Amino acid sequence: MSQEKTTNQSWGGRFSEPVDAFVARFTASVNFDQRLYKHDIQGSIAHASMLAQVGVLTTDERDTIIEGLRAIQSEIEAGEFDWQVELEDVHMNIEARLTQRIGITGKKLHTGRSRNDQVATDIRLWLREEIDIILSELERLQSGLLDQAEQHAEVIMPGFTHLQTAQPVTFGHHLLAWYEMLRRDTERLLDCRKRVNRMPLGSAALAGTTYPIDRSITCELLGFDAVSGNSLDGVSDRDFAIEFCAAAAVAMMHLSRFSEELVLWTSAQFNFIDLPDRFCTGSSIMPQKKNPDVPELVRGKSGRVYGHLMGLLTLMKSQPLAYNKDNQEDKEPLFDAVDTLRDSLRAFADMIPAIKPRVDMMREAALRGFSTATDLADYLVRKGLPFRDCHEIVGLAVKYGVDQGKDLAEMSLAELRQFSDQIEQDVFDVLTLEGSVNARDHIGGTAPAQVRAAVTRGRAQLQADNA
Amino acid sequence: MSQEKTTNQSWGGRFSEPVDAFVARFTASVNFDQRLYKHDIQGSIAHASMLAQVGVLTTDERDTIIEGLRAIQSEIEAGEFDWQVELEDVHMNIEARLTQRIGITGKKLHTGRSRNDQVATDIRLWLREEIDIILSELERLQSGLLDQAEQHAEVIMPGFTHLQTAQPVTFGHHLLAWYEMLRRDTERLLDCRKRVNRMPLGSAALAGTTYPIDRSITCELLGFDAVSGNSLDGVSDRDFAIEFCAAAAVAMMHLSRFSEELVLWTSAQFNFIDLPDRFCTGSSIMPQKKNPDVPELVRGKSGRVYGHLMGLLTLMKSQPLAYNKDNQEDKEPLFDAVDTLRDSLRAFADMIPAIKPRVDMMREAALRGFSTATDLADYLVRKGLPFRDCHEIVGLAVKYGVDQGKDLAEMSLAELRQFSDQIEQDVFDVLTLEGSVNARDHIGGTAPAQVRAAVTRGRAQLQADNA
Amino acid sequence: MSQEKTTNQSWGGRFSEPVDAFVARFTASVNFDQRLYKHDIQGSIAHASMLAQVGVLTTDERDTIIEGLRAIQSEIEAGEFDWQVELEDVHMNIEARLTQRIGITGKKLHTGRSRNDQVATDIRLWLREEIDIILSELERLQSGLLDQAEQHAEVIMPGFTHLQTAQPVTFGHHLLAWYEMLRRDTERLLDCRKRVNRMPLGSAALAGTTYPIDRSITCELLGFDAVSGNSLDGVSDRDFAIEFCAAAAVAMMHLSRFSEELVLWTSAQFNFIDLPDRFCTGSSIMPQKKNPDVPELVRGKSGRVYGHLMGLLTLMKSQPLAYNKDNQEDKEPLFDAVDTLRDSLRAFADMIPAIKPRVDMMREAALRGFSTATDLADYLVRKGLPFRDCHEIVGLAVKYGVDQGKDLAEMSLAELRQFSDQIEQDVFDVLTLEGSVNARDHIGGTAPAQVRAAVTRGRAQLQADNA
Amino acid sequence: MSQEKTTNQSWGGRFSEPVDAFVARFTASVNFDQRLYKHDIQGSIAHASMLAQVGVLTTDERDTIIEGLRAIQSEIEAGEFDWQVELEDVHMNIEARLTQRIGITGKKLHTGRSRNDQVATDIRLWLREEIDIILSELERLQSGLLDQAEQHAEVIMPGFTHLQTAQPVTFGHHLLAWYEMLRRDTERLLDCRKRVNRMPLGSAALAGTTYPIDRSITCELLGFDAVSGNSLDGVSDRDFAIEFCAAAAVAMMHLSRFSEELVLWTSAQFNFIDLPDRFCTGSSIMPQKKNPDVPELVRGKSGRVYGHLMGLLTLMKSQPLAYNKDNQEDKEPLFDAVDTLRDSLRAFADMIPAIKPRVDMMREAALRGFSTATDLADYLVRKGLPFRDCHEIVGLAVKYGVDQGKDLAEMSLAELRQFSDQIEQDVFDVLTLEGSVNARDHIGGTAPAQVRAAVTRGRAQLQADNA
Repeated sequence: MSQEKTTNQSWGGRFSEPVDAFVARFTASVNFDQRLYKHDIQGSIAHASMLAQVGVLTTDERDTIIEGLRAIQSEIEAGEFDWQVELEDVHMNIEARLTQRIGITGKKLHTGRSRNDQVATDIRLWLREEIDIILSELERLQSGLLDQAEQHAEVIMPGFTHLQTAQPVTFGHHLLAWYEMLRRDTERLLDCRKRVNRMPLGSAALAGTTYPIDRSITCELLGFDAVSGNSLDGVSDRDFAIEFCAAAAVAMMHLSRFSEELVLWTSAQFNFIDLPDRFCTGSSIMPQKKNPDVPELVRGKSGRVYGHLMGLLTLMKSQPLAYNKDNQEDKEPLFDAVDTLRDSLRAFADMIPAIKPRVDMMREAALRGFSTATDLADYLVRKGLPFRDCHEIVGLAVKYGVDQGKDLAEMSLAELRQFSDQIEQDVFDVLTLEGSVNARDHIGGTAPAQVRAAVTRGRAQLQADNA
Repeated sequence: MSQEKTTNQSWGGRFSEPVDAFVARFTASVNFDQRLYKHDIQGSIAHASMLAQVGVLTTDERDTIIEGLRAIQSEIEAGEFDWQVELEDVHMNIEARLTQRIGITGKKLHTGRSRNDQVATDIRLWLREEIDIILSELERLQSGLLDQAEQHAEVIMPGFTHLQTAQPVTFGHHLLAWYEMLRRDTERLLDCRKRVNRMPLGSAALAGTTYPIDRSITCELLGFDAVSGNSLDGVSDRDFAIEFCAAAAVAMMHLSRFSEELVLWTSAQFNFIDLPDRFCTGSSIMPQKKNPDVPELVRGKSGRVYGHLMGLLTLMKSQPLAYNKDNQEDKEPLFDAVDTLRDSLRAFADMIPAIKPRVDMMREAALRGFSTATDLADYLVRKGLPFRDCHEIVGLAVKYGVDQGKDLAEMSLAELRQFSDQIEQDVFDVLTLEGSVNARDHIGGTAPAQVRAAVTRGRAQLQADNA
Repeated sequence: MSQEKTTNQSWGGRFSEPVDAFVARFTASVNFDQRLYKHDIQGSIAHASMLAQVGVLTTDERDTIIEGLRAIQSEIEAGEFDWQVELEDVHMNIEARLTQRIGITGKKLHTGRSRNDQVATDIRLWLREEIDIILSELERLQSGLLDQAEQHAEVIMPGFTHLQTAQPVTFGHHLLAWYEMLRRDTERLLDCRKRVNRMPLGSAALAGTTYPIDRSITCELLGFDAVSGNSLDGVSDRDFAIEFCAAAAVAMMHLSRFSEELVLWTSAQFNFIDLPDRFCTGSSIMPQKKNPDVPELVRGKSGRVYGHLMGLLTLMKSQPLAYNKDNQEDKEPLFDAVDTLRDSLRAFADMIPAIKPRVDMMREAALRGFSTATDLADYLVRKGLPFRDCHEIVGLAVKYGVDQGKDLAEMSLAELRQFSDQIEQDVFDVLTLEGSVNARDHIGGTAPAQVRAAVTRGRAQLQADNA
Repeated sequence: MSQEKTTNQSWGGRFSEPVDAFVARFTASVNFDQRLYKHDIQGSIAHASMLAQVGVLTTDERDTIIEGLRAIQSEIEAGEFDWQVELEDVHMNIEARLTQRIGITGKKLHTGRSRNDQVATDIRLWLREEIDIILSELERLQSGLLDQAEQHAEVIMPGFTHLQTAQPVTFGHHLLAWYEMLRRDTERLLDCRKRVNRMPLGSAALAGTTYPIDRSITCELLGFDAVSGNSLDGVSDRDFAIEFCAAAAVAMMHLSRFSEELVLWTSAQFNFIDLPDRFCTGSSIMPQKKNPDVPELVRGKSGRVYGHLMGLLTLMKSQPLAYNKDNQEDKEPLFDAVDTLRDSLRAFADMIPAIKPRVDMMREAALRGFSTATDLADYLVRKGLPFRDCHEIVGLAVKYGVDQGKDLAEMSLAELRQFSDQIEQDVFDVLTLEGSVNARDHIGGTAPAQVRAAVTRGRAQLQADNA
């Protein structure tokens, strides 16, 4: 932070006293918005190019400006740029340095634009790039899940509802549930990207500009899909940031569910998977501990993204048109939401290929807990009883099993026939784990054949994403 | 609420004591989920039809079931249905009544499905219908805005940034900023609808079913775009509800901004528009009051939708697969978010065509506040000065104007030339309101010609929506 | 909902057209605020009594009014009151009925007050009563925890961090962690109650009244601690509702953590406790299921209270003084937050005394997982080694144990001495579960003696609450 | 950020591979928790002192440790400390440096504690200090409001409800509404501070420790009010952070309302106050602009604090006992909430004494808009008519005034008597602004005498805070 100087040099002559030093720091954004420097320069180069094309700048002026901006980018990337809080933000810092370097021509760059449309353009350029990085991390994670699912298509584990043993499922099938969640995240980010990729540049302060700008030129130079349709909306719209945070919040929610299961499964009580040491940390006091830090931390990080979403929605509530200073508060939550989602996905994309199921523990757990009770009921339905009656019969058999400490497959035929004389020797086929999972052989079902079919579909989806 | 009976009749024989009476009421959902009755019956009819087609039911059984369900729908709509809390939810209430009416065949309806996939299907059918209603209210409101914008394309008002007079804009242009916001809401709801319109039916409890179901049949009968790809995900996915609430929260945020401006504009201080009495209410104590209740209430209602979004995100955080009882809590927030958005849009779609600008007040306000200062700066740029220097010159002229109590257009040429000898007689053309707005004549700009072009584009968009 | 009539009878003559019928319904609150009827009447009786005492009403008028109000209360409680949407809210419904019953004197009741201060007073009276009910449910739950903790002071279970076995703890100690959380909830609600219990009545519409009211009289009649100090703030302050929701959100968060553990503990994998059937429900498809519905539902209900808190904070953001129509939106979230917290506490207060630990399963789990590794490290410290070195030594012993499939207590002395020759025969005393828990014998520690002492302290706290 | 080294040196020998380099960075907290260094050292000094007093350390060891810690504090404050990401957090960084400086004795400091209780203690010490700073900024702002209120006790402005002119109020009275809000913030922070100021140290990892610690010694040395009562709760409780954020969210909500009014009042349309240039900034494009940046920015900053509250509530939802890695996520939201509230209060405390009412503009606005209509109704009540009838009469008079373009005070007696023959010449006394405000002369009312009384009460409160 700078010493307590005062300044108002960005907006000139109307003021009769300088800004209070604390206020200057309090209202400055350069400490966080300097992150946008590359996209600010990218936008300025396109703007200068367009101004030259429509005759507002000469080509010499354009070239001088572009050369100056590129030199500044090099200074910044070399760590040699002197960011100044009294210049408020990334835009004025770069522009002031430009004028310092190239003289009076630098002052012409801001013609026909305002910081209001400039910053809105910068953030969109930045977010577009980050979304693409996030999409590639999502793909890497999805791909890892498909590989694991294929490899473990026949591994049987208990499926849970209410965290109670419900029915046997395949481990591959369970992994693909996560895949499905992440697919929707990809879809939502692609939908969001459409609305990010519209160009507010040309909205100027709020009403457009009197210069003969051609917005289609900058639009094409910057790779935007379209220009924004209304200048008042163009400078004040922050929907894209909120929509991104909403998509990110859902994605983090998915990772929190995913994490919860990894934490459960690495507990001594479940002991379903092995997580390599390199994704865990230990305890400063308990020497035996190996903690699943990565999933725990990601689970916790869902909170910050939820919070940023709420923060941005609150920010925009009730704001009259057009730009208000409030909007400066859009950046930090958005930056942190992007970083959190990207890094969480990266950690999972690294980790998932390395998890190993403990096949025996899973199988043993599936054998306990009457997990094939539904199969017995279905068996009775096939013998002609109404489903609801079968449900009642099996319920009584389970109650008997709880009392006797026997699972269904461990009862004798005589014991089972106490509950229905429709039960015959062939019942024991449906009471096996393999019989149970193989029988669920329709699209979306847990049968190994369906898992393999889903992996094939998934790979085609990923390939289509990249086509 | 029923008397304190106890029951556990839905899930039969495994239990050794009945559910506690308070617990029965606490865990029941029938008081709110009965709202889904029509979609529950629609789903059951499709399910029965499919079961008959694959041979699990006879066609006679199917017909008996469908007839019974239709009779029950009539009972419900006639207010003659006896909802029972001890039957927990809408599904068991209808199924129990079906068996009561048609006997043992009714017990066969639940074959090959579970309440887990049943309720997920019901909500999606319901929400799809509600989204379509909301889309039509959105369209009605957008259409009203386009009409008003066309009518008032040349009305000039002050444009604000920081709620300070910034530059003159046309009233039509301002109205179209709202139009743009609402267009994005339409887009987001259409994107959301794609993910709502996928069918979980066939996921059964969590793992699929052993019956030879054909999910493509029910999918087509119910008008879904696709079946869900994984049964564990199918029963536990609530993304669609969250995504809807996120889109609704943004839409309500837009209405809150819109409302804020209507409240400001109907104040004695702004006095920019006239709101018909029928959208206002009075005071029980202050006889002169005419309060803009509708915009105020809609502004306030943004809070409840933000809250529901947060509630649903919290609900899903960290839930392990597959279905958990927590998920029963998805309905009330979603129902209320739908009702709030739909009714708020309806109120605005009724109200907007009735607002009338006070053209004289708007014009007078635009004339005050140095709103053409930017035009003066641009004028100087055209005389060859760098923009930043022009900004400084005009800043000093404004400071002089503040001290003298004169707007720019009220100064003499001599006064203006104190600040730059580049200023000549033609300056007074750029200092008029009409000169200012007409000069901003590019896509997105505030010129009347651009407003009319934007109205034409908007009408084409609305027509395309309905094509 | 009434038919589509139109009316504006509450605020008389200034209006030239009636309110739109949809608007009338959209802006009416009587469907939800009729819940305040008892407190509205209570407030009106106190107001009338005060008006008589200062001479604005005659004692006859006062008596007629009070008698009329009491009759109306009886009508409402007998279900015979005809609530009318066109009368907007509970206040106008009751006042209109009063005038209908007692004639012109009824019209005098509203002298010197406004609906703005009236409704603020009603909600505070209502919330005060509800807080007291919630406090008593909290006490009942705390008391149940103390009883269970005392009974199970010596039962040993694994203590977890990161859901990994960490150190043995006593079950009683674990229960008391929940007690501590709930104590803070009690404290917070008592602090909140202080700020609820201040009286806005007398603020009138926003500026106070010209009648010679004496606010100290109504304050005393209604049992408020103090009168609000500023009328503008008095009618627009909703801090108390937000503060209550914040306290409720933290309490629900506690119950969600509590619930998470009950769900884990009733899983087949943990199997730590037995939850009586009467707090569980079954499955419509899986006959063997016994689901911990109450904890799951309470865990899910945390979301709605978080949401209401967010909704109310959003509601109040940026509202200018004094009352705005937005504030009507304060009631539904507050009502639902109160109901949710009260019922969730009631369910837990009923359930907790009925849970039974599976002592053998807990003990067995505590014996696994190297839970006494810290005790071994502490043993070595007592032999003179620095803690960090002991940690390293025990880490190596644990790694050896993982490889050999042996817990620390199962190794021979020779095996243990591979890691440090400071280890001697007496090490086996510290490796027992009882040795471990008994050694943590300081305030807040897990030793049975400390559990009993904490129970004694807790009972004294509960007694002090009621003193 | 460090280069991609790998390490697991903090928790020793149990691990067979080092932590992944990205994971090490992802899970490290030292980049943000180094802010706690001073309180970490403070806690360590107290811990070492206690260990010496109970005989676990020798006094020489204690002195060596304390001296070492103080030297490290100097290093940090001189900017010479080498923070290392591979050491994870502030605690391990300081401890490792201690051992580096003083050798083996440094390794003894961690005896009888864990990072779990250590960090919980550090944050509480830090937050306690920050709360005290915030309380002093609150007091400074309250004091400024009292001074302004006293000075402007007789300045009359329109009071608004629904942003419509309602009744005349005094500017001093309006300022005191803000004072009341801030008083409640002070109260809430004091209540919160009680629960912050409890000491978890001694809880160790989760179960307490086997060393003969005396928690009362550290409690007294560190100035805590009490020790936490349960070790499992002690290490996992984050209520205090949530409660602080809830209090901060309400305080920021107050500042957002306050800001909204300042933004309105500095608009050309209201023009009620003058904000000195040093609290405003200008525009890079519109030379005439003077924007109320400070209030706008503070209004916007309410969003981030709401978000942090939601983030922390989400973080804690459903976490099982005791410490989980998720909890590391508690710090950044809390830090930012503290900074935001403190700086926002500071900006307001600086700014409020400098705002100047435009007395003439306020008065003129109060004269318009029938602001004394209620006074006319009250006048008629005093003539013996029921309030509801008077309301109707005045409503008709207002409607006539709207049509004729005349305020009530501008009508002739004859015109007024069209509506009631009870109106006589003395009516003009009650239609003046002074008559109106002076008549509201009860506690909480807007009369200048009441404003002065409230200022006196307020000063006594501030004095009591500091007693």
